[in-house]
Amino acid sequence: MIVAMQDEAKEELIQQVIEKMVEIGFDVHRTTGATSTILAGVGKPGHFDVAEFQVLEGVHQAYRISSPYKLAGRGFRPEGTTITFPNGVVVGGENVTIMAGPCSVESPEQILLSAQQVKAAGGQFLRGGAFKPRSSPYSFQGMGLEGLKLLREVADETGLLVITEVMEISQIELMLPYIDCFQVGARNMQNFNLLRELGYVRKPVLLKRGIAATIEEVLLSAEYILSGGNYDLMLCERGIRTFETYTRNTMDISAIPVLKKLTHLPVLGDPSHGVGKREFVAPMALASVAAGADGLLMEMHPNPDKALSDGAQSLFPEQLEKLVAQLRQIAPIVGRSVA
Amino acid sequence: MIVAMQDEAKEELIQQVIEKMVEIGFDVHRTTGATSTILAGVGKPGHFDVAEFQVLEGVHQAYRISSPYKLAGRGFRPEGTTITFPNGVVVGGENVTIMAGPCSVESPEQILLSAQQVKAAGGQFLRGGAFKPRSSPYSFQGMGLEGLKLLREVADETGLLVITEVMEISQIELMLPYIDCFQVGARNMQNFNLLRELGYVRKPVLLKRGIAATIEEVLLSAEYILSGGNYDLMLCERGIRTFETYTRNTMDISAIPVLKKLTHLPVLGDPSHGVGKREFVAPMALASVAAGADGLLMEMHPNPDKALSDGAQSLFPEQLEKLVAQLRQIAPIVGRSVA
Amino acid sequence: MIVAMQDEAKEELIQQVIEKMVEIGFDVHRTTGATSTILAGVGKPGHFDVAEFQVLEGVHQAYRISSPYKLAGRGFRPEGTTITFPNGVVVGGENVTIMAGPCSVESPEQILLSAQQVKAAGGQFLRGGAFKPRSSPYSFQGMGLEGLKLLREVADETGLLVITEVMEISQIELMLPYIDCFQVGARNMQNFNLLRELGYVRKPVLLKRGIAATIEEVLLSAEYILSGGNYDLMLCERGIRTFETYTRNTMDISAIPVLKKLTHLPVLGDPSHGVGKREFVAPMALASVAAGADGLLMEMHPNPDKALSDGAQSLFPEQLEKLVAQLRQIAPIVGRSVA
Amino acid sequence: MIVAMQDEAKEELIQQVIEKMVEIGFDVHRTTGATSTILAGVGKPGHFDVAEFQVLEGVHQAYRISSPYKLAGRGFRPEGTTITFPNGVVVGGENVTIMAGPCSVESPEQILLSAQQVKAAGGQFLRGGAFKPRSSPYSFQGMGLEGLKLLREVADETGLLVITEVMEISQIELMLPYIDCFQVGARNMQNFNLLRELGYVRKPVLLKRGIAATIEEVLLSAEYILSGGNYDLMLCERGIRTFETYTRNTMDISAIPVLKKLTHLPVLGDPSHGVGKREFVAPMALASVAAGADGLLMEMHPNPDKALSDGAQSLFPEQLEKLVAQLRQIAPIVGRSVA
Repeated sequence: MIVAMQDEAKEELIQQVIEKMVEIGFDVHRTTGATSTILAGVGKPGHFDVAEFQVLEGVHQAYRISSPYKLAGRGFRPEGTTITFPNGVVVGGENVTIMAGPCSVESPEQILLSAQQVKAAGGQFLRGGAFKPRSSPYSFQGMGLEGLKLLREVADETGLLVITEVMEISQIELMLPYIDCFQVGARNMQNFNLLRELGYVRKPVLLKRGIAATIEEVLLSAEYILSGGNYDLMLCERGIRTFETYTRNTMDISAIPVLKKLTHLPVLGDPSHGVGKREFVAPMALASVAAGADGLLMEMHPNPDKALSDGAQSLFPEQLEKLVAQLRQIAPIVGRSVA
Repeated sequence: MIVAMQDEAKEELIQQVIEKMVEIGFDVHRTTGATSTILAGVGKPGHFDVAEFQVLEGVHQAYRISSPYKLAGRGFRPEGTTITFPNGVVVGGENVTIMAGPCSVESPEQILLSAQQVKAAGGQFLRGGAFKPRSSPYSFQGMGLEGLKLLREVADETGLLVITEVMEISQIELMLPYIDCFQVGARNMQNFNLLRELGYVRKPVLLKRGIAATIEEVLLSAEYILSGGNYDLMLCERGIRTFETYTRNTMDISAIPVLKKLTHLPVLGDPSHGVGKREFVAPMALASVAAGADGLLMEMHPNPDKALSDGAQSLFPEQLEKLVAQLRQIAPIVGRSVA
Repeated sequence: MIVAMQDEAKEELIQQVIEKMVEIGFDVHRTTGATSTILAGVGKPGHFDVAEFQVLEGVHQAYRISSPYKLAGRGFRPEGTTITFPNGVVVGGENVTIMAGPCSVESPEQILLSAQQVKAAGGQFLRGGAFKPRSSPYSFQGMGLEGLKLLREVADETGLLVITEVMEISQIELMLPYIDCFQVGARNMQNFNLLRELGYVRKPVLLKRGIAATIEEVLLSAEYILSGGNYDLMLCERGIRTFETYTRNTMDISAIPVLKKLTHLPVLGDPSHGVGKREFVAPMALASVAAGADGLLMEMHPNPDKALSDGAQSLFPEQLEKLVAQLRQIAPIVGRSVA
Repeated sequence: MIVAMQDEAKEELIQQVIEKMVEIGFDVHRTTGATSTILAGVGKPGHFDVAEFQVLEGVHQAYRISSPYKLAGRGFRPEGTTITFPNGVVVGGENVTIMAGPCSVESPEQILLSAQQVKAAGGQFLRGGAFKPRSSPYSFQGMGLEGLKLLREVADETGLLVITEVMEISQIELMLPYIDCFQVGARNMQNFNLLRELGYVRKPVLLKRGIAATIEEVLLSAEYILSGGNYDLMLCERGIRTFETYTRNTMDISAIPVLKKLTHLPVLGDPSHGVGKREFVAPMALASVAAGADGLLMEMHPNPDKALSDGAQSLFPEQLEKLVAQLRQIAPIVGRSVA
């Protein structure tokens, strides 16, 4: 870490800071300028909060140099992570993976039809929510276990993998037999107890960025899962909240190449939540892949106008089909391919 | 709800929208202007998502008129909610309630000393975290059940009430015997399963605004708890995330009078998380009360420089004492009083 | 406009609102529900501020239905605007236009070399700042008139068009002989006096979105220029300010398809300012075109490490060349072409 | 400045960075840890852009240590700036100054009545816009020079000072004979040409924070004015743009104590623009003063419902009177006084 003292800080205050740095485990190197003193801490310190240095008397600024995440950093696995699923599908590497399906599992007919349409369009994963706590207590709340069983059934029938959202620790065991990938939603990105438990599971996880989460915070949350030993992890940009209200969120496309630089984990985009309006989903999906995304997670419904949730941002089946065809053309231009 | 059709929308599209409105349970009144048509839906509709109307063909704009929350609305209890605690302390009404204590319970000595200092300064509640999942998996994670017991013990000894954070459903039962008020943190503001369970409990709850939550979303989350039958609920503004980085968050002081208008629930301010730096906590506490807050939740530590968490934003005991003295003078100017 | 009265608003208050609506020029249609009253105003009102209705006693919500912009709206010219430049270059339609060059004109050698490199890479416009007021008063402030002359000279020599920023009304006359397109920077997006004057000029204008401007505000600013009679206008997304600090701004790629829907004006992207770091410029340029941009405005410098301003976000000449080659492949997939 | 190299950066890259630092004028001190190298630059460098170091090969992070502003920093005048006006009114020090009046000067009667009401309520300054370019080209645009003359006339008659907004360099000369203080609006906070000219004027200036400006950027803009030799400068917080839409902006009350720490300049609050709705202006005014503001700039109109602009956020005269009475009581609690 680095501490820059205020101009003409008293020696006594400088000594206090040095002591505190040494206490944490730093070797401290001091640079004394005409008016300013800089303390550089190197070595292998214990865990510390840089904010505590920022409020010490005499301190002008304090910076953390080393990333607070280790396992998630690109340096940990420079070649990049790939995740191989039971049926041989690989996420990461050169692949651009397509995950699609309705917001919620609503009925056997609806989810079977969805699976067939996702498969026909060229997708590898079927998405669909079984547990749907909504922002209003009066909205549809999902089919629960019944929904999980339906997902597994239709996925097997159509040759797809299942990704669905886990919302609490108690659901993990329940979900394990039916799914191929846990999805952690934006609202749970900092539900650290849940993340920790998912670190102990041997099943891939897709972690979505919270709507107000910085890129560094996404990586710290990833670290929670990785530090439990679960390395089959992907990240997903799905829009952040800004002052713009025409779109549901502002999809931060730049987070895709930035994450690809900072971490070895695959990075997907979710344009459905990113914009919240059907007509802008395809442009944002194309943009995501052009910017280097390893895949897309999208909402598609056999009949969006009748969807019990998120119909406004769900693609029609034929839109998905057309979109995947375009993605197949764009991917090679940036050195990738859609399966 | 209101739907404004696009200029010169075809009659067929207008009929489609009317049908969908009627389906939901609206009575539809149509206004046909020279170029534009407006559809006003009144009556008692079922639950619906206004976004689905916004994407219908021919629709220019669609608005929800009625609040999606009912029990949380000011109209439900115009006189305002007051919450009476076992020892007679009342939150709401004319009172400005002081809640203070360390971020985390660290040891018997630390928490006892904290309680004594909070009491001496004039506080009514002792705060302190027992479960502390942190944004880095490598930081101090709290004392757990042991911490709860200590809180209860020292609070009883000093005549304070206990408020502490609940992070999962499984902790509710565990906490019930030891605490006087559940605190739901910003990260859990939309953990709807947790909120629902807290609605079934007969113990007061303080619900913090999420860092990217709109005021309407805070009220929808409140609705979750209220709809379970737990009316002993308070809200708390604790800073939102903006582009400004000098402070940890931007404390939205205006949310206090806005919430006081929109809801009958007591509204507190948490200036410690709001700014994240000790020296600005007092000005923001004073500002909160000047703006109409029903109380304050603040971090104070007997020795902030040695705190295991959030030391940078914790007041020194003597700072709390001075602050409460100032609050005692400000409160009456806005028709309130500090106990 | 629509005014929804509060539940059980008194008749007297309803009449007040109706009067005020009529005063402005609305025909008012009233819908009276069991508890709520809705007033729909249609017709051709004078200019009004919807906020004034929102604060009237008894009013629950008030909405403006008609867009406050007319000439900028897609409906004004559904087929889309194309702008033809003296040398036959057309912006808009199927074209994806490339504009590139250094942040500032620094010397005759630097700007000539830049022009040659932009031309070689396949660009149509040379950009370069002559007037450079910077956020610090102590930074390089541009070459002024001398810079304009150099831009014209090297552009003519290489067969490029010149786009450069205008910062004040007094510069308009000065610039006219030397440039092909005025650029209005993000900081001047709401410099309404400047916009008005540019409306009277017969020379194309590129208007950048402000860092905190909503899409509607961009269109209102466009309206200022259009209402003066200058229809040769393009818009440009260049990043908005959010809480994310890893990138200089958050480039709102979704603003591109949204603007393409709402307005007939060409929409460009500026990935250099959007991200602020060279290595992410290319992915964001590709994403912009994949999402439907009509062109790109980018910083390129013959020697970015020696640039007097914005070197960190300037492409190397060979990066620009490679990028344009990729853009040439992506454009046809979305029905467009790079010249 | 500080540059932290990437772990195991090659010696050659380290040397490149050192050279570039030396070129700028730094003395470089090098700290070599087991894996990481830190370069501390001290001395008196020329002007530089830290972003250029952040993108150099091998660099992990680069920080500027010294503030990029000097004259605006608290250290330049630790005792704080006070500004004395011709009639003896002093802004700064212990005073809390009240500035109020309508958004726009509309007529001789309206502005005279406004002045009388501001005076009666206890104000020292009359505000009122003469030049009013609005976000819609179709709204009322102000009375211009005529408005300036009216302001001067009624201010003299009532014993008030005049503050009004300057929007362009060409207005400065025009305004000088009529006003006591220039106001630079949020949209012009980074109109550096205007700021520079105001630095050469010998008349006080109030500089408002832009809606997306960081606190550091406010101070850099202040530096522009100060560096021209005009030290009679005040700053004003007036709300920043966030995702919350219930209020027009989010007034960042914490910016007041933060600015008071970082700079010697007086800091005012503008709650009218901060919230945009009349009923929340008073709570935010009280909060501003409780948090340490040196004054308030507020909109008041003799008949807000008939105001030609900003009526929704203008106080009624009797509201201003009541508010100032409360401010008189709050100020002494934080060591200040309202004249």
